[in-house]
Amino acid sequence: MTNSDAASLVASRIRDVPDFPKPGIMFKDITPMLADPEALDAAATALADPWRDAAVGKVVGIESRGFIFGALVAQKLGCGFVPVRKPGKLPADTESVSYKLEYGTDTLEIHRDGLAAGESALVVDDLLATGGTAAAACELVEKVGGKVAGCAFVVELGFLPGREKLGDRRCEALITY
Amino acid sequence: MTNSDAASLVASRIRDVPDFPKPGIMFKDITPMLADPEALDAAATALADPWRDAAVGKVVGIESRGFIFGALVAQKLGCGFVPVRKPGKLPADTESVSYKLEYGTDTLEIHRDGLAAGESALVVDDLLATGGTAAAACELVEKVGGKVAGCAFVVELGFLPGREKLGDRRCEALITY
Repeated sequence: MTNSDAASLVASRIRDVPDFPKPGIMFKDITPMLADPEALDAAATALADPWRDAAVGKVVGIESRGFIFGALVAQKLGCGFVPVRKPGKLPADTESVSYKLEYGTDTLEIHRDGLAAGESALVVDDLLATGGTAAAACELVEKVGGKVAGCAFVVELGFLPGREKLGDRRCEALITY
Repeated sequence: MTNSDAASLVASRIRDVPDFPKPGIMFKDITPMLADPEALDAAATALADPWRDAAVGKVVGIESRGFIFGALVAQKLGCGFVPVRKPGKLPADTESVSYKLEYGTDTLEIHRDGLAAGESALVVDDLLATGGTAAAACELVEKVGGKVAGCAFVVELGFLPGREKLGDRRCEALITY
């Protein structure tokens, strides 16, 4: 399957849910895609393929939906998986990064020993929206001594400035709305 | 690799973190296993293998660490994946189940259309401890019209009554402490 065929299949399994999480927002619900083994495998393969020559050492998945795709992409690339989690969830020594939300702030954590010095990490999540979460994950990778190979998303909301937030880091999305 | 070799490899990549999440608790940290591609793949294969003849229709993964193994087991079994999530995270119509914790209660949700009528579901999580979370996930499967094929865990804490909580449902764990 070409990446464009994969993107079409995956897009056909994403449904719009209006007014979630709040009135006026049209939510892109990926659960029908998760439920379809062919679409899920196509998504994982298409997410991994652009990075096969990028010497990725670890896939970093962002809690929670990034765990689904991160694990599958790690498997496709033959890499290990490193979780980036909400505060207080990782048991060993952590680094943390806080970032601004529309209202208030959020914090993410990574294990200090999650990456070797200079190890290259691919950050994976389902959605690139404002980019705050992904940028925080990239910062975490760098804080523990890793290098960001880039970021991979199933869906990018192209009308939001997520890509700008990621600076000159390489960024690939399977589907852009 | 036999399932017993897989269990040895996986066990060698689980580390003890003392006093997490609170003093006196020895936490079984699976992150070194996630970071090792061979151990992670062995875990996923060994989790899936006992269910290859069980006609599993969907793998149900419990947020958050169950997403990692649930996605990989779904891929190994050629099944779709259905997330069970904390309240307010799933965008479409949901069923919910609340269950008791040591202090207070917790709630989990599943999409009402997550399973077809009579569809067989394998519930996957990293850890079977008191069994409250897994039993709630089984109830959710049944509430939306599915059948529980059984439950699969990476680690079972055999000194806790998790298995009893699951009643006569089939239950497989890769490693028991």
